[in-house]
Amino acid sequence: MSLLTVGTVAFDDIETPFGRAERIIGGAATYISLAASYFLSDIRLVSVIGDDFPQELLSDLEARGVNLDGLQRKPGEKSFFWAGKYREDLNIRDTLDTQLNVLANFNPVLPEHYKRSDFLMLGNLTPIVQMRVIEQMERRPQVIALDTMNFWMNTAMEGLRAVLKRVDLLIINDEEARQLSGVYSLVKAAEIIHQMGPKYLVIKKGEHGAFLFQGENIFYAPALPLAEVFDPTGAGDTFAGGFMGYLSKTGDLSFDNMKRAVIYGSAMASFCVERFGMERLMNLSQDEIGERVGRFVELVKFQVE
Amino acid sequence: MSLLTVGTVAFDDIETPFGRAERIIGGAATYISLAASYFLSDIRLVSVIGDDFPQELLSDLEARGVNLDGLQRKPGEKSFFWAGKYREDLNIRDTLDTQLNVLANFNPVLPEHYKRSDFLMLGNLTPIVQMRVIEQMERRPQVIALDTMNFWMNTAMEGLRAVLKRVDLLIINDEEARQLSGVYSLVKAAEIIHQMGPKYLVIKKGEHGAFLFQGENIFYAPALPLAEVFDPTGAGDTFAGGFMGYLSKTGDLSFDNMKRAVIYGSAMASFCVERFGMERLMNLSQDEIGERVGRFVELVKFQVE
Repeated sequence: MSLLTVGTVAFDDIETPFGRAERIIGGAATYISLAASYFLSDIRLVSVIGDDFPQELLSDLEARGVNLDGLQRKPGEKSFFWAGKYREDLNIRDTLDTQLNVLANFNPVLPEHYKRSDFLMLGNLTPIVQMRVIEQMERRPQVIALDTMNFWMNTAMEGLRAVLKRVDLLIINDEEARQLSGVYSLVKAAEIIHQMGPKYLVIKKGEHGAFLFQGENIFYAPALPLAEVFDPTGAGDTFAGGFMGYLSKTGDLSFDNMKRAVIYGSAMASFCVERFGMERLMNLSQDEIGERVGRFVELVKFQVE
Repeated sequence: MSLLTVGTVAFDDIETPFGRAERIIGGAATYISLAASYFLSDIRLVSVIGDDFPQELLSDLEARGVNLDGLQRKPGEKSFFWAGKYREDLNIRDTLDTQLNVLANFNPVLPEHYKRSDFLMLGNLTPIVQMRVIEQMERRPQVIALDTMNFWMNTAMEGLRAVLKRVDLLIINDEEARQLSGVYSLVKAAEIIHQMGPKYLVIKKGEHGAFLFQGENIFYAPALPLAEVFDPTGAGDTFAGGFMGYLSKTGDLSFDNMKRAVIYGSAMASFCVERFGMERLMNLSQDEIGERVGRFVELVKFQVE
């Protein structure tokens, strides 16, 4: 199975209550493909960078099986840059700076061999770019998943509605689900969002875990209670990468398997937050991932008579 | 097994985004004993009311097996009154009015036959009153559980520390756990709180569920995702009543059984929030409770290979 991922490849400045890091590697497509690489060897990446981006990280991704034929390099331009600061409640972050740079005129072009990918993960980007990727696919992927954010709901709702009709799975956070649906109850929000297109819906709640909805079916996975949450940046994309990586590896779209995908996604996200940026995601072992999944099993296990 | 519960019996004015109710019956001891009555027939209640309190509710409690010999009635005085308003995010409420009335000089006096109760649940009250109850016990209960709030941490921390040394189980919410421990991470907070006395700790997170900690053991139970949350008042006390009711009924203090108690407490709380005050808790059937517990089983169930 193959997974195509589309999203930003970027520099981040990050400040948390526990420290700060400048100009570290970030971006949705980076986190997604890195997390997915622990499940799958055929990952393709569509994004754009300037010539300021370090070759080292690109080599690391390629070494992990991520194909970069779809990564555009713009000479003389700068890569996307984001700076943010987290409050003590790590669920809240303030954006300090956003420099679109190469992203301002990003036109995704899929290499020929990307156009029949089995699974597609559309990271958070303007809905027009997400739609252009879908339109270039020669065969419909088994699952098209999409992430988005409040900003697009405020500025590009028409385009977002159009692309939502084309996707199977929407992965957003609780605040975004409430804004998109216009209701506060996440159960009601799920009903409304299902009607917009996605058959499957994941609502991420940060440190409070994640819901998976498919019609009447509801599954809830906690986040692991960690003594140290160092930096939440990329946790949502890492979740999405783990989820889609596991789904692509297994090719099983049953609700029971989707639940497992949520657990694997949550496990990958729990690693992500332990260090700045993607430091912790660079060298995980399958044993570490298996042990982490085992902690989720233990955390929620109970038996009623 | 017998359960002794101590706490307020009160009138509440409640406003939520979905409506308002005036002068309805509330109070920690009321919710706790009502929820526990679905598990246990021997429940004893210590509290105080004025002569403005309706006999009807007292008869209802007695009909459900709650002994009221420890309920003091103060002629010519008024019952405790609380008024609060919930924001759209039902996790936040503002207190509009608090009239202590009979509670101002409450001195709990245990009837003789209360003094050898098997389990003890100390609802949220000033730590001095909680301590006076413990001191009147002739035999140490199998479990002494305690609820408290930020107000006592701000105004009576010394008394609270003293009573915490005497209790086995502390049931508080996440905000209270953070204030009591002085740390943000709930995992670290649990370590610090264990050192203050309680071997067991439940941290309630409202719509996000609840943690149970016992040393290295951690269990997480979600809250049921409900389409309609009408009024959260009393949900925490109802949880405590269901938890202690189940624990008292089974008399089994293993961690596995404590987990079940968390699930039963969560199930009872999920009923509580569906209507104003304790309306929904007055006439539940064992079948309804069993069905609700089954929904918790389904909600978190997954199988990894």
